[in-house]
Amino acid sequence: MEVKDNVDAQAAMQEEEKGKDAERARWYTDTILQSELADYSPVKGCMVIRPYGYALWEQIQKALDQMIKDTGHSNAYFPMFIPESFMTKEKEHVEGFAPECAVVTHGGGKKLEEPLIVRPTSETIINYMFAKWVQSWRDLPLLINQWANVVRWEMRTRLFLRTTEFLWQEGHTAHATEQEAEEEAQRMLGVYKDFAENWMALPVLTGEKTENERFAGAVRTYCIEALMRDAKALQAGTSHFLGQNFAKAFEIKFQSAEGGLEFAWQTSWGVSTRLVGAIILGHGDEKGLILPPKLAPIQVVIVPIYKTDEDKATVFERCQQIHDLLKPSVRVHFDKREQHTPGWKFNHWEQKGVPIRLNVGPKDVAGNVVEVARRDTGEKIRGVAMSGLENEVAGLLTAVQKNIFERAVAFRKENTRQLTEYGEFKSTMEEKYGFVEANWCGASSCEASIKEETKATIRVIPFDWQPQDGKCIRCGGASTKRVVFAKAY
Amino acid sequence: MEVKDNVDAQAAMQEEEKGKDAERARWYTDTILQSELADYSPVKGCMVIRPYGYALWEQIQKALDQMIKDTGHSNAYFPMFIPESFMTKEKEHVEGFAPECAVVTHGGGKKLEEPLIVRPTSETIINYMFAKWVQSWRDLPLLINQWANVVRWEMRTRLFLRTTEFLWQEGHTAHATEQEAEEEAQRMLGVYKDFAENWMALPVLTGEKTENERFAGAVRTYCIEALMRDAKALQAGTSHFLGQNFAKAFEIKFQSAEGGLEFAWQTSWGVSTRLVGAIILGHGDEKGLILPPKLAPIQVVIVPIYKTDEDKATVFERCQQIHDLLKPSVRVHFDKREQHTPGWKFNHWEQKGVPIRLNVGPKDVAGNVVEVARRDTGEKIRGVAMSGLENEVAGLLTAVQKNIFERAVAFRKENTRQLTEYGEFKSTMEEKYGFVEANWCGASSCEASIKEETKATIRVIPFDWQPQDGKCIRCGGASTKRVVFAKAY
Repeated sequence: MEVKDNVDAQAAMQEEEKGKDAERARWYTDTILQSELADYSPVKGCMVIRPYGYALWEQIQKALDQMIKDTGHSNAYFPMFIPESFMTKEKEHVEGFAPECAVVTHGGGKKLEEPLIVRPTSETIINYMFAKWVQSWRDLPLLINQWANVVRWEMRTRLFLRTTEFLWQEGHTAHATEQEAEEEAQRMLGVYKDFAENWMALPVLTGEKTENERFAGAVRTYCIEALMRDAKALQAGTSHFLGQNFAKAFEIKFQSAEGGLEFAWQTSWGVSTRLVGAIILGHGDEKGLILPPKLAPIQVVIVPIYKTDEDKATVFERCQQIHDLLKPSVRVHFDKREQHTPGWKFNHWEQKGVPIRLNVGPKDVAGNVVEVARRDTGEKIRGVAMSGLENEVAGLLTAVQKNIFERAVAFRKENTRQLTEYGEFKSTMEEKYGFVEANWCGASSCEASIKEETKATIRVIPFDWQPQDGKCIRCGGASTKRVVFAKAY
Repeated sequence: MEVKDNVDAQAAMQEEEKGKDAERARWYTDTILQSELADYSPVKGCMVIRPYGYALWEQIQKALDQMIKDTGHSNAYFPMFIPESFMTKEKEHVEGFAPECAVVTHGGGKKLEEPLIVRPTSETIINYMFAKWVQSWRDLPLLINQWANVVRWEMRTRLFLRTTEFLWQEGHTAHATEQEAEEEAQRMLGVYKDFAENWMALPVLTGEKTENERFAGAVRTYCIEALMRDAKALQAGTSHFLGQNFAKAFEIKFQSAEGGLEFAWQTSWGVSTRLVGAIILGHGDEKGLILPPKLAPIQVVIVPIYKTDEDKATVFERCQQIHDLLKPSVRVHFDKREQHTPGWKFNHWEQKGVPIRLNVGPKDVAGNVVEVARRDTGEKIRGVAMSGLENEVAGLLTAVQKNIFERAVAFRKENTRQLTEYGEFKSTMEEKYGFVEANWCGASSCEASIKEETKATIRVIPFDWQPQDGKCIRCGGASTKRVVFAKAY
């Protein structure tokens, strides 16, 4: 396979070191390491997902897996090694992925006759199997999902956002008609939007990518696009309408109900451990993580406060009682460690983004109350009655989930600008970032110039926008295409 | 790395082609392909786990993951690439695994400075991280589990039982004392035994492996050993006491409570997709799979029986009603397909090993009853009343689970022999197979001769056996060691 150096990525790496971006990058890394979500590994570009980070990923998996099953898909597992010849069957696919491949050349002490690619994505191997399984229209639709690790050799990497190896789910489907496949691609984008907004508490734009940003081998790529708290955009998930490109490359043919022989229509779609990065950057503040209650591995932490041994006994007993009370309905943790002060624990659990903290001291025990601290607002509510505490906590968790979503919606609104003048566009991309809605003539050359001059890219061509007459923000040419630009991760 | 050809495996491959073993091998492969548990892939030695097989693996994962968490372990994820130099740090480990490694030599279009091994197991990379995380006795015990794919380059492979890439969980722990680590290794073996017997419905022997069969790098290897329906043994899980071998290789040192600097004591343990093979071979019969109800992806299937369109409407309505009734408590499927006859469906679901089938015809609807068919006994119970059907079904699922376990216990008993004479030992291993309890002098040479002459190996030195005076089955020398021999998968 032919390979080119990834010059763009190197340039981006240098750019990253400047000013507030550098500061934000440091905050991001420090937050991940200190909250013990992940750690650097001795393997270039690969990270270790530590128990706290993996527990968050497990919550993401659990909720999303159910949504994927509820829309009729079944999980399966395909080999992670792909014969090199498979990768070359779809022309655009190989051009897109060849530069990023890790290659196994030796196995069992011998040089392999044909090198194996470690999957960067599984269209090729899965569609080879689909061709074997699909004979008749009765075998369709074929709706498969896989949870797996994949490898893309990246020049510059960043914990969770872009790692050489990452974890993800990849859906692959085959349908009898173009319309069904198109509906499927959009349905799964809808699932991603639902998940992002209702579980991750992050509002997302949905729409189509431009040709430049399209998945290698797709006819159309749809995406969900979120805005982080530093006003940079993050692509959080993609869904591709593949047309018949892979079906033709791998000969996925079926006998139609009418008796003809036709190529299947296909989709693929995926989200990854990058979603953890989206949660960190989308909600976090100077104190550390702020986790959405629905996905937080620990939703409520109980911190005992005492000075004397006698107090300790009373307070521990009450904490244990609260723990046992909440346990059936809430992911609760009682921090019993004696080597740390309450103040240390407050910081510790704030950094880890636990939505609600219950502080319990001797006076609280005596008065049959607890003190409740909210991570999202910093608010402390004293004297919350023990009776009805489960309901109070459940209500607060819902309130936190709602509040951080609304805050993110408001932040996005504040940081979305409609611009018509390129000077203003450039200064916005230099200073304020955010989403910029502007007209674009549709030329790749304008898109490329804008990227070169401002580092901003077209994040998405929103679905629901009516054509709007105007002038291309770059060349001033006539344009009815309104798109969203941003600097992105 | 130095590599030797795997001559044993080649010999075994030839041996496999003969007589009843060949017949059994064909049954095994046909059953897997026809029940759609898995399929061959275009990648040598790798399989595709199809939705039905993956759903079974998901049930295994769900139950076992909870047991692993309940014993205090947390899940995490480590890179699948291991720098070659890591593998060589523990001398016995590299000798054991080097011949089986897949090696990545190129990434991003360039030759790597240091080749990367695709993990065959993760002791090396995980212990490198443990050394970073463990400083004080307060950091211990460190109890980590990982669900992952691993690669071992095998000469001959068989679906689920031995594939180049397979899925597994691998536990890795570090402790302050030898005793704690020893207890942990045995505790996790206990978890595996519990899981095998109470979920998979397969009785297992537990004990220690001989030095020859020990994990490369372990001080002691414990295992669970099951007997398949063809009277061959299957190692279903292992738990290793690693001593301080890896701690010394990777410098996992900690400050003890007394202030000294000590090396940690460690364990590792794992089970894999091989468990699916154990379920197939441990319970299946000439009709196909027999799945234990607690793990069956579909516990109850409903088959409508009708001739006229009018009957169809009534019967479908009742089937849907039963489906909705059972759904909250049971994994139930209503087979609505119209292109297949009831007879075809009976065979189909029997082959897939669904524990209970409900047949519903017009007369059943009229009489407010259903017909219940048990997969394990073939028994049909006519006229089971609709009222109380949930309880009836729940009771039957428990009964099936119990019955197939007891049947497996009885089968093992029938196929376990106490022998003292080598001639009889040889003929047993030629014709009847099964477990053979016999004395062994402890010499590797006798163990090797027996393997060469009969293909039988020492499966396990059981924990709970008292020394028993006798003579080595092979050399006649004095022996107090009673062990279990078998021909194994």
